[in-house]
Amino acid sequence: MSTHEPTTQQHVQQQLTQEQADRILAAVDAQFDDQLARTAELVAAPSLRAGEEAAQDLIERHYRELGLEVDRWAIGSDELEAHPGYGKATVDYSTMTNVVGTYAPSVEAGRSLILNGHIDVVPEGPESQWSRSPWDARVEGDWMYGRGAGDMKAGLIANLAAFRAVRAAGLELTGRVHLQSVVEEECTGNGSLAALLRGYTADAVIISEPEEDALVRANVGVLWGTIRVSGSPTHPREMASGFNAIDAAYDVIRALRVLEARWNAEQGEHRYFQDLDHPINFNIGGITGGDWPSSVPAWCELRVRIATYPGVTADDAWAAVTECVAAEASDDSRHPAFAVELTPDGFYAEGYVLEPGSEAEALLEETHRTVFGKDLTSFTTPGYLDGRVFVNYGNIPTLVYGPISENIHGFDERVSIESIRRCTKSMALYLASWCGVVEAASAA
Amino acid sequence: MSTHEPTTQQHVQQQLTQEQADRILAAVDAQFDDQLARTAELVAAPSLRAGEEAAQDLIERHYRELGLEVDRWAIGSDELEAHPGYGKATVDYSTMTNVVGTYAPSVEAGRSLILNGHIDVVPEGPESQWSRSPWDARVEGDWMYGRGAGDMKAGLIANLAAFRAVRAAGLELTGRVHLQSVVEEECTGNGSLAALLRGYTADAVIISEPEEDALVRANVGVLWGTIRVSGSPTHPREMASGFNAIDAAYDVIRALRVLEARWNAEQGEHRYFQDLDHPINFNIGGITGGDWPSSVPAWCELRVRIATYPGVTADDAWAAVTECVAAEASDDSRHPAFAVELTPDGFYAEGYVLEPGSEAEALLEETHRTVFGKDLTSFTTPGYLDGRVFVNYGNIPTLVYGPISENIHGFDERVSIESIRRCTKSMALYLASWCGVVEAASAA
Repeated sequence: MSTHEPTTQQHVQQQLTQEQADRILAAVDAQFDDQLARTAELVAAPSLRAGEEAAQDLIERHYRELGLEVDRWAIGSDELEAHPGYGKATVDYSTMTNVVGTYAPSVEAGRSLILNGHIDVVPEGPESQWSRSPWDARVEGDWMYGRGAGDMKAGLIANLAAFRAVRAAGLELTGRVHLQSVVEEECTGNGSLAALLRGYTADAVIISEPEEDALVRANVGVLWGTIRVSGSPTHPREMASGFNAIDAAYDVIRALRVLEARWNAEQGEHRYFQDLDHPINFNIGGITGGDWPSSVPAWCELRVRIATYPGVTADDAWAAVTECVAAEASDDSRHPAFAVELTPDGFYAEGYVLEPGSEAEALLEETHRTVFGKDLTSFTTPGYLDGRVFVNYGNIPTLVYGPISENIHGFDERVSIESIRRCTKSMALYLASWCGVVEAASAA
Repeated sequence: MSTHEPTTQQHVQQQLTQEQADRILAAVDAQFDDQLARTAELVAAPSLRAGEEAAQDLIERHYRELGLEVDRWAIGSDELEAHPGYGKATVDYSTMTNVVGTYAPSVEAGRSLILNGHIDVVPEGPESQWSRSPWDARVEGDWMYGRGAGDMKAGLIANLAAFRAVRAAGLELTGRVHLQSVVEEECTGNGSLAALLRGYTADAVIISEPEEDALVRANVGVLWGTIRVSGSPTHPREMASGFNAIDAAYDVIRALRVLEARWNAEQGEHRYFQDLDHPINFNIGGITGGDWPSSVPAWCELRVRIATYPGVTADDAWAAVTECVAAEASDDSRHPAFAVELTPDGFYAEGYVLEPGSEAEALLEETHRTVFGKDLTSFTTPGYLDGRVFVNYGNIPTLVYGPISENIHGFDERVSIESIRRCTKSMALYLASWCGVVEAASAA
């Protein structure tokens, strides 16, 4: 267990010269083919849940190649499980590892930075619905395809490439940097939480998620649960008036949709959510029920994903969902009453807001303008982000910012190559400016 | 392959004497504890689909004990698969056996009879919803509990017990008898079909299904299929207007319910179905969909059971269902159009009518009145029965007749013990009267 406290000493404000900035931008370009090749290689390592280790091996190799101090550890711990932000896991954490590569300058003069990304990807779904293999990171025009290409192997490698570009530009960082490749972002958020609990903090965090070349201002919380409905049906020949678990499950879905609509109607009360079309999405992501075509189904399970506004505790949201499904189950005016059980099995995560006005954000506005030639925009996302770990529990300004993508979690997921290039440039300038640099030669 | 042609010679009408009948009835009583013990032993051998062999071993032992000629064979054959009544199977038929025990009198003077029953049982469902283990055939009051107790291990052993009682009464049958224990009645009906194709026919068939001490007059056809809906959804954050396979599956269910209602509205056109409450039941027996709680589900599969009236061909019914789900899938006025695929995976069975007026039925009316002290009633069942094999393809009068049960295909399935006793008595008298008997001593 290593501990890295935030830098407490006053940082030396480092202003890059135009010439240094140009060198960094040129280095990103010079290395860009290599960056894409590493991204494609990472996409080709399918890091589905509980299968991330081969991909983490690649990441570890990249970190070691740069001479970083590598910390790779299995994320399970009692401390993690006791944390209020812990999401109940159903997989074995004794063999699932985070990888952190740390750069520590000889003298810490600048500010410290975490460059975070997640290695896990969501399931590819039926491969027949992909134009080509989801694990074949082909490039067509400006797009690289593949499961995880956008979400977020492009970002993970961009973190690495930004760091490499600064060094290739002949500059040496004067602030501490942690490159993080974490697991479990797509299901619990326990990977980033485990990294925070291991002691990794910094003066700012960048998470290079696919965010349309923009900055995430606020973000929903996400809860995962399994809802099991059950009762006692009969033979199909007597089914007309009896219990049917698949019908009952659909009644539960309808009840959840009512709760979802109520929460969406409250959007005016939530800062940064007023202008969204449909900020709160409940997703019924999975369903399983029944044992036999000619038996009326006795049970049906729904795997649900519930979104919440920042400031709503996971406990309160969970209680509301519990009450909603219990009321539906006991309402025998529309259907035979049935048993319902709600079990947490993943995210138990509250949303967050990136408070405006931080130095961290101000700097990103600058580097973004330099590279993109226009102002940085911020927006509110209705999907889970590990930003909540660093903001809610680390109190660290956290910039979720990254390239343009399409169809993440869908078929033919893809990420814009020119967007990767620009975001990498913006992050490389950010890294050099935030942490400070000296000329590598003068440091020798 | 053995072949047993129906008896063509004129049978000798055998009238049991009152004394002979009394001896048979007394023999059923004398052996009844043994009959119940064999039934319980058979319930304790869970003969779920593709796991029937241990239970068939028990049956074979019972048949051999009686000195019957035993024929046990794996049911798979090209002839079976080519038959129009074949239901598409997804299990291995090379190790799944039927057992037939044949009694052949030295001279065939009487009529021949098949006593048929199925060994397979439907899944027990969540065991937590049973009061005790579904494989523990406990007796409480007049009820024996357990999966398959009613449907139809009580009947299978009653067939055996009826045969044993005639012999224990000191009588020797003068007609050929086939005791049949078949597989696949709960999913395809291929077991009885394979027995018919193997050459087993007779002048009448009794199938001792749990039929409330009554006779089945008519019976629906049943089709099984898997309906897969699929499309291209997106990340939950963009889900408001997109495709969702679980929602689409419920749209398909609703469309099927409309077709079901239309068919039920036509009941007036179908003899023996006019007075039923809801003769045509479509059962959605299983549902599976989605890969990940935070991905909008791209696919969902329904396992459905469709009922049809006798006289409606399976091909016509299948075409109607196909048209129904295809119309729903392409209706993009209510939802994004999606792909739908309907695949047969079980029953492809037409219904049947037991034409009134047969000698076979007339005799059952007599034996039933003798034992129960009241008239035999007949009724129409909205569940599949193997009767369709013998009626539709063998042109044999087939009496589906058996004890009172509750919750077959449900939890705490149970069968009435006194009803078993009476049905066994009625069948034993039937067997002796139909096939004819001579005193065993005089035959020696």
